[in-house]
Amino acid sequence: MKIPVAILGATGYTGAELIRLIDGHPHFTIAHLAAHSQAGKAAGAVLPGCGGRTADMTLAAADAPLPEAVQLVFTALPHAAAATSVANALSQGKKVVDLSADFRHQSAAVYQQAYAVEHPCPELFQQAVYGLCEHARDRVAATSLVANPGCYPTSTLLPLIPLLKAGLLDTDGIIVDSKSGASGAGRSAKTDLLYCEINESVKAYGMPRHRHAWEMEEWAEGFTGSPVRIRFVPHILPMTRGMLTTLHLSGKQVDRWHAILQEAYSDEPFVRVLAAGELPSTGGVCGSNRCDIGISVVGEHEVVIVSCIDNLLKGAAGQAVQNANLMFSLDEGAGLSVHATWP
Amino acid sequence: MKIPVAILGATGYTGAELIRLIDGHPHFTIAHLAAHSQAGKAAGAVLPGCGGRTADMTLAAADAPLPEAVQLVFTALPHAAAATSVANALSQGKKVVDLSADFRHQSAAVYQQAYAVEHPCPELFQQAVYGLCEHARDRVAATSLVANPGCYPTSTLLPLIPLLKAGLLDTDGIIVDSKSGASGAGRSAKTDLLYCEINESVKAYGMPRHRHAWEMEEWAEGFTGSPVRIRFVPHILPMTRGMLTTLHLSGKQVDRWHAILQEAYSDEPFVRVLAAGELPSTGGVCGSNRCDIGISVVGEHEVVIVSCIDNLLKGAAGQAVQNANLMFSLDEGAGLSVHATWP
Amino acid sequence: MKIPVAILGATGYTGAELIRLIDGHPHFTIAHLAAHSQAGKAAGAVLPGCGGRTADMTLAAADAPLPEAVQLVFTALPHAAAATSVANALSQGKKVVDLSADFRHQSAAVYQQAYAVEHPCPELFQQAVYGLCEHARDRVAATSLVANPGCYPTSTLLPLIPLLKAGLLDTDGIIVDSKSGASGAGRSAKTDLLYCEINESVKAYGMPRHRHAWEMEEWAEGFTGSPVRIRFVPHILPMTRGMLTTLHLSGKQVDRWHAILQEAYSDEPFVRVLAAGELPSTGGVCGSNRCDIGISVVGEHEVVIVSCIDNLLKGAAGQAVQNANLMFSLDEGAGLSVHATWP
Amino acid sequence: MKIPVAILGATGYTGAELIRLIDGHPHFTIAHLAAHSQAGKAAGAVLPGCGGRTADMTLAAADAPLPEAVQLVFTALPHAAAATSVANALSQGKKVVDLSADFRHQSAAVYQQAYAVEHPCPELFQQAVYGLCEHARDRVAATSLVANPGCYPTSTLLPLIPLLKAGLLDTDGIIVDSKSGASGAGRSAKTDLLYCEINESVKAYGMPRHRHAWEMEEWAEGFTGSPVRIRFVPHILPMTRGMLTTLHLSGKQVDRWHAILQEAYSDEPFVRVLAAGELPSTGGVCGSNRCDIGISVVGEHEVVIVSCIDNLLKGAAGQAVQNANLMFSLDEGAGLSVHATWP
Repeated sequence: MKIPVAILGATGYTGAELIRLIDGHPHFTIAHLAAHSQAGKAAGAVLPGCGGRTADMTLAAADAPLPEAVQLVFTALPHAAAATSVANALSQGKKVVDLSADFRHQSAAVYQQAYAVEHPCPELFQQAVYGLCEHARDRVAATSLVANPGCYPTSTLLPLIPLLKAGLLDTDGIIVDSKSGASGAGRSAKTDLLYCEINESVKAYGMPRHRHAWEMEEWAEGFTGSPVRIRFVPHILPMTRGMLTTLHLSGKQVDRWHAILQEAYSDEPFVRVLAAGELPSTGGVCGSNRCDIGISVVGEHEVVIVSCIDNLLKGAAGQAVQNANLMFSLDEGAGLSVHATWP
Repeated sequence: MKIPVAILGATGYTGAELIRLIDGHPHFTIAHLAAHSQAGKAAGAVLPGCGGRTADMTLAAADAPLPEAVQLVFTALPHAAAATSVANALSQGKKVVDLSADFRHQSAAVYQQAYAVEHPCPELFQQAVYGLCEHARDRVAATSLVANPGCYPTSTLLPLIPLLKAGLLDTDGIIVDSKSGASGAGRSAKTDLLYCEINESVKAYGMPRHRHAWEMEEWAEGFTGSPVRIRFVPHILPMTRGMLTTLHLSGKQVDRWHAILQEAYSDEPFVRVLAAGELPSTGGVCGSNRCDIGISVVGEHEVVIVSCIDNLLKGAAGQAVQNANLMFSLDEGAGLSVHATWP
Repeated sequence: MKIPVAILGATGYTGAELIRLIDGHPHFTIAHLAAHSQAGKAAGAVLPGCGGRTADMTLAAADAPLPEAVQLVFTALPHAAAATSVANALSQGKKVVDLSADFRHQSAAVYQQAYAVEHPCPELFQQAVYGLCEHARDRVAATSLVANPGCYPTSTLLPLIPLLKAGLLDTDGIIVDSKSGASGAGRSAKTDLLYCEINESVKAYGMPRHRHAWEMEEWAEGFTGSPVRIRFVPHILPMTRGMLTTLHLSGKQVDRWHAILQEAYSDEPFVRVLAAGELPSTGGVCGSNRCDIGISVVGEHEVVIVSCIDNLLKGAAGQAVQNANLMFSLDEGAGLSVHATWP
Repeated sequence: MKIPVAILGATGYTGAELIRLIDGHPHFTIAHLAAHSQAGKAAGAVLPGCGGRTADMTLAAADAPLPEAVQLVFTALPHAAAATSVANALSQGKKVVDLSADFRHQSAAVYQQAYAVEHPCPELFQQAVYGLCEHARDRVAATSLVANPGCYPTSTLLPLIPLLKAGLLDTDGIIVDSKSGASGAGRSAKTDLLYCEINESVKAYGMPRHRHAWEMEEWAEGFTGSPVRIRFVPHILPMTRGMLTTLHLSGKQVDRWHAILQEAYSDEPFVRVLAAGELPSTGGVCGSNRCDIGISVVGEHEVVIVSCIDNLLKGAAGQAVQNANLMFSLDEGAGLSVHATWP
């Protein structure tokens, strides 16, 4: 018997990826799909990639009641909107993986600073677990509410945490220069997301301080105890998927850093530390749930670290399924690919 | 116990996709990877998308002996080179799915016309089965050698065969205008395949007669008994994957064609006939093993049919696995996705 | 003294290209820029590619009075909206090149069939000249109103006209399969034009009969006297610019066709007939005002012709400037490039 | 009478762009085209974008004698190979703009450090002028040999120089994170430059120290007197053209920086400082010779500066023509566009 699952916000890019993963999952099955603006249509009419019987499922309204059988809810909704759906699902005894930003912070105060809105359900912060799987397994397994990390923080924290724990990093000069595919901007009809505006062009955005900077700083300290200052600049690239984060770092004993990272992740199926001096590409991870990390020592005290993920997988739907696997005590990698869809 | 499988020609684009599919397959497992020019290296060093333990497997030489345990061999080698490896594997009692063109024809004579080389093993033609799964299930299940169809013929024959069987098509004026992603041209270092030459550009090629025209005509007749004449023009597009074939057709009772196709494929998991008037996109099938077909009646006797596949999946590695599933009496869809990796 | 020019509809993709061409033109200068929804802003604030002093020009409202000095008006407005602006400019004694579809037909009746709206100024049809420059020089030079041809018709008519004149073409079986970059769809914020929906995907659209089919049939006959039937299927490709049209043709004396085309265009700076058997790419024409044509004889009576243009140049702004040059008795190629911006 | 010009290395991407610019230039004309491996062919047979009469010009061998009439030579050859051709042209009394790296340094010693080859003509260093036009006008006008700056250094030095001169920049912590289109890697048939390897992927390369880092540091000091340390990481993006450089900077009086840059470039046609807080995109400069610069103050002492150029224009052929204009006392912007070819 597969575990029945609901996906709220099924018609965005992350929702589409959740459908693909759950339909190919050995232990979960889709029982309910909801969408704000497309309710009443068949999933396949809104999602061109959706096939099989799921394509014929009717999209429920966002606030339609959840089927009783549903045990797990993925919320892929805009921030502020998600929290109410999360509260509602929890109150019915469902487990929830929330892919919005609503529970990624430890307090409503930081949330409001980053998102400039009041939080609708601050009382839930206490039970939310920040689901950076490799560093939060036990807590994720024990909770009913996982806040799925943002894509930029995932690609940044995975390489940073082991180095922060080792105490070798200058915590005041961490520069994070990230490059993201356009799918990270979502599926809304805006002029600046048109094909001809994004194609063959690159730009920085989100200045002077992108929301994910708060999340990075909060959890770098949260996982390691070290307060850090991060200077973060995101860019949007002419590609659909993929995120590459370049970390410009300083510190001591830089020759040990590669070994520290390699050891930290040697048993992890979804984090791969490349051989010293080798650098990853996003093409090598897209379609997989992997994070590939490369390290280049560039000075006596200076190191460049590059990490790559698929922003819709390890950066969203993939890590959400990995968290769900942990919450239901399943094989952590069930339904997830270690191989990219390459080329 | 999973069935041990060998992949010969593992480092091309089709080989990479076979590795991904077999590693995610519930009943097959990779036991042997061979590659002509990269022998001795780890798979992951040559294939950036390859992860997990397979990335550490050493690539054997193309002519290295096959492990005894191997029961199934995929040959993803250039034409003319593949035939000898196929013969060798068959002589050791292995089953073979050949992804090259070497056994796609019914005689050496047609092969030589299309490929302008002598066939190294003409005696094997008799046992080869042309593996267009939806129309050759029983024969595929009963043979040891499947010739996996070419990508252009797959996207052309799937819509044509039911209409030819119904006898409603003008068989003398079939125009096939195909558009393919660049991965179909393979992974060789040629100037005209460089990023800057393909990007933001489209061109026709293979004129006056592309090799796949013979294959289309031979099997259109082979599956239906109707000799046909096909005028085929392929184009290369600035995208990695995907193939869209536009069929400009004439015939009678054109209002029945949609129903004929819909009925022919109503039970097929990997062929989807869209609602009348709707047209597919390659984005909607890439990453899946699906063929999506759309029909538009444009005149009293004239119809445009558009079919879409992922050239590396239903057009190559996906159909190869579908054939392998049939050869081993497994669930035909095992290890294959009905969902595209979209967007 | 340069001739002062106005551009109405300056903030779309065609408008942007007109600005670039006029600012680099030796005999024209921009005196007035108008835009429907962005009036009051600086041109550079809406058009990221716009530089120099023009970037600081304020966009006038669409219905703002034209400066008296203006002698020439380019209207790059939506169909139906353009006609009124055209009438207004003509009444003030300006010359007009209209890039909309409003005057591309010879009568309001055909226009209404193709565009399904009533024509606001049918009385102007009589003075409008269809500006396919290479075949309408004298008429263009003598008129005040040029209807700039559509992109699909331009790429189709240039190769067809000389063959129709020679009387060697089967006029009943002309199949036109066109592939266009996404800029042809314009700059409006629609979900299906988002980067992630267009990228890495191709689709057909406009079925069962695209508006440009009427234009093609009307002017094939208009320029040659031969009524023709055209079956036209357009596709949208993952590239910003460029249009490739594949003509699947039949007729007699097919070995003469290459010579006929070569002779027809031997003195034309903006039409290049490639050597026999060679086929063009859109990459080879984008950024230029050229149309490249390739011919491949594929049967005793069958020929494939491929033509390539930049849809925003020879298919829109470039041909508009070429027409303007003719209207003012300037060098026909002034301000236009014979070289593509390649790669 | 136009000035006759030779282009050596005409068949690479930079050579193609030089041909386009010179053919559209009011005062220069192409008299000689040479190419290493394609000698004897017509230019148009090797360069698909090349049109007009130039397409019919025969490519001379790389070492063919230069026509006597030629007054100016552009050398677009690989480093180390270029120097000999430069020496040869100078000895015949021609002026030279060298687009290779051979004369970008002030001494053979630094050159050998960066390029790991011995310099063939170290005696020429003394007369070479580093042609960053906006900061070297007088010296360029007075010399016969201009070393055209590299693309990464151009995009880095233009924003840095005014700030270094003002003495407000921490010179020890300059981090330069650059993103380049694939055309910067040239036109050689390498597997890692294939369409399917570059498309939909981004990677860093050139670690631990890219050759252009030496050039940046040398000329930052050369133009300002301040020694600086630059940490430089370049990336290759899935686009043909365009380069975006993100400068992560620290210093004092950061609120004055925008005004300093705006004042420094207020009269420059090819450098545009955007309004405070606005950030440029490469799409907004490609096809033009512009460098767009945006500034965002992100902390009390911290600033992010983003600069964009077309790597083949302001980063190569465009700046080369700008230098040539200066060398012949022509209008500095002759033959160059301030508008991007957008979209």
